[in-house]
Amino acid sequence: MRGDVADYQMSAMLMAIFFQGLSPIELQTMTRCIIDSGQRLDFSSGSAPAVDKHSTGGVGDKVSLILAPLLAEFGLRVPMMSGRGLGHSGGTLDKLESIPGFRTDIELDEFRAIVSEIGCAMIGQTQQITPLDGRLYALRDVTATVQSIPLIAASIVSKKVAEGIGSLVLDVKVGRGAFIQDLAEARKLAETMVELAGSLGLRTSALLTAMDEPLGCMVGNALEVREAIECLRGGGPDDLREVTLALCVEAVLDSDETADASDVRSRLEGLLDSGAALDRLTRLIERQGGDPHVTEDLDLLPSAPVVRPFLAPWTGYIKVLDCRVIGMAAVQLGAGRMTVADTVDPRVGFDVCCRVGERVERDQVLVHIHARDEASATQAAQRLEAALELSELPTEAMPLIVDRVKTQSRP
Amino acid sequence: MRGDVADYQMSAMLMAIFFQGLSPIELQTMTRCIIDSGQRLDFSSGSAPAVDKHSTGGVGDKVSLILAPLLAEFGLRVPMMSGRGLGHSGGTLDKLESIPGFRTDIELDEFRAIVSEIGCAMIGQTQQITPLDGRLYALRDVTATVQSIPLIAASIVSKKVAEGIGSLVLDVKVGRGAFIQDLAEARKLAETMVELAGSLGLRTSALLTAMDEPLGCMVGNALEVREAIECLRGGGPDDLREVTLALCVEAVLDSDETADASDVRSRLEGLLDSGAALDRLTRLIERQGGDPHVTEDLDLLPSAPVVRPFLAPWTGYIKVLDCRVIGMAAVQLGAGRMTVADTVDPRVGFDVCCRVGERVERDQVLVHIHARDEASATQAAQRLEAALELSELPTEAMPLIVDRVKTQSRP
Repeated sequence: MRGDVADYQMSAMLMAIFFQGLSPIELQTMTRCIIDSGQRLDFSSGSAPAVDKHSTGGVGDKVSLILAPLLAEFGLRVPMMSGRGLGHSGGTLDKLESIPGFRTDIELDEFRAIVSEIGCAMIGQTQQITPLDGRLYALRDVTATVQSIPLIAASIVSKKVAEGIGSLVLDVKVGRGAFIQDLAEARKLAETMVELAGSLGLRTSALLTAMDEPLGCMVGNALEVREAIECLRGGGPDDLREVTLALCVEAVLDSDETADASDVRSRLEGLLDSGAALDRLTRLIERQGGDPHVTEDLDLLPSAPVVRPFLAPWTGYIKVLDCRVIGMAAVQLGAGRMTVADTVDPRVGFDVCCRVGERVERDQVLVHIHARDEASATQAAQRLEAALELSELPTEAMPLIVDRVKTQSRP
Repeated sequence: MRGDVADYQMSAMLMAIFFQGLSPIELQTMTRCIIDSGQRLDFSSGSAPAVDKHSTGGVGDKVSLILAPLLAEFGLRVPMMSGRGLGHSGGTLDKLESIPGFRTDIELDEFRAIVSEIGCAMIGQTQQITPLDGRLYALRDVTATVQSIPLIAASIVSKKVAEGIGSLVLDVKVGRGAFIQDLAEARKLAETMVELAGSLGLRTSALLTAMDEPLGCMVGNALEVREAIECLRGGGPDDLREVTLALCVEAVLDSDETADASDVRSRLEGLLDSGAALDRLTRLIERQGGDPHVTEDLDLLPSAPVVRPFLAPWTGYIKVLDCRVIGMAAVQLGAGRMTVADTVDPRVGFDVCCRVGERVERDQVLVHIHARDEASATQAAQRLEAALELSELPTEAMPLIVDRVKTQSRP
């Protein structure tokens, strides 16, 4: 960051890492350098353990919006820094900003203050934290070295260590809509990150979770906020509630080894079903400048002028609901970005009313398309056709929680 | 060269090639791009075949100074573009410039004129020929990607194809003082270059030659010119004469498939022994601005003020005369460069009076150190101690001509 290493040397190093990998000690050293390039927060002195969650990204993944207030209500602190959507994959900041008035561009001092007042805060990445990661990512983007397990691990773990949290839970997605589609590679990424974070003193566990079809029903920013609020009311789709609870249980166990998993889970369920976690979100929205009434009145969220059903072309079992194709269709509706410079329409997206393995009848509504105009709704319907595969024979979805990777207990 | 590809992308590509290699068609395509980045000469229309030699570099390698006038005298044209010394390895331009007045910085029009008048010309590389090679080399130098067989091959072959010659002979050095020390790697480099040049229409053969000890006795610029002139008088060390003749025979056979090797060799020997090739060098020196009388009176060459003998510490067989160490000792005397910005003292160097395998008596003179002052002579003597290994048992040098690689005849 002082300018001693030229871009052409850094990009050559990235390519060398892409092909040769890094040993654990090399990876740890590189990650320390990234951490040391910026400020390092410290939430260790507070009363409650500070935790965060990171997802490798997917379609319909609104878990952060539920998990942060739920864990805060449980008694942890959740200082969360999130990213924006790119390509088929959505981003938490874009979702939050569909709440009228909500600010994510918040200075670190205010971030700390919000965490201490509300128990959680959700802001965007800042150049003050791991600025070297930004420089490296920009070079990876233009040298085809994004898809490298050590480079991904260093990028994610450095940011989370610099956040100054005490423990971390990772949601490593697997399947068609995941950043890494192959299970063995995804497991290797999870293991690499868990080991790396552990070696830097950050207790970490990872779940490998399904991303073949969208998580939950809603895809698109305001639609996903709506679904997250429904989940915080004790409702919402089963898969979304299940993945959220599983990640929250891991986060609690990471921060308290003595806790009992099933006890933690039932307390978390209670906080969802009672609406207590939703109240926490309401306070957070208000504190970050948003309209707190959205959590009572979902119609205060922006909505699309055109809503059109997409029907099953015939009767059968849903074999594929390709969430990479659905994610790209949502981008083309305006819900996401192809380049970082694109702007996002918070209103548009899909409400996917079916799941893989389900039997559907001809002309049954499979998806509601939320579009800014008729023409884009028509285009989106064509793209959904490509995402859907029906079978005459019963089919099964992949398991929701595919695997679990945990830091080895220290002797 | 238009600026469409940033340095950071080019260096990432170089590193990818370093680890992944290039297929023959990729290598050919890259080499064509380098050729097309600049001017391309064409010597095909002249009366005599145009040939050149390229050596991968070594210590005491003054072959070019003999080969160019010898082949010109034989009836070929030799438009030769050479480089400067760097690290332990010497460079033809530095040697030529120890001749008072000799100019190597010559424009392409004059280069063509000299070749057509004298039959040979010896100039430095110009940015008009393969400028992309210069840009790539600068990036390889700062990204540790110099030692890559496809990148070395593309760099060398592109320059030689752009010279517009009809055939090429390569001298790939093997051993302690060679750029690539391992025989298998050196053979692979030779095969890669021969195949690549052949695929671009340049008939090429390669000799793998010994570079464990210096070639000939003299190391250092004016000293090497002196030894080259002695060779052109029919004298000089046997190994230098042998390697030069072998390379010249290959060059002639490359340009004329019907020639008989032993007949060619005896004609070449005659041109050395008669002094005819030396006359050609005299004319070339005069044409390129140098003092032509040096070929009659070697004392016109610059000479060092201090000449000190280096003696055998005991009696035994010479097992090692490490020419990498000797080359570096010569650099430190002032005969070469550690960086491209260093200047060269033409006077200094070594006269190595012994060969590997030879039995020497205690206090026998093994080397004459030619130095600019007593202090540097003393330092050089210490370094020579590290280069020398004596054995009580008889030892053998590696064969002078290790192997031969030739373009497959076309059907």
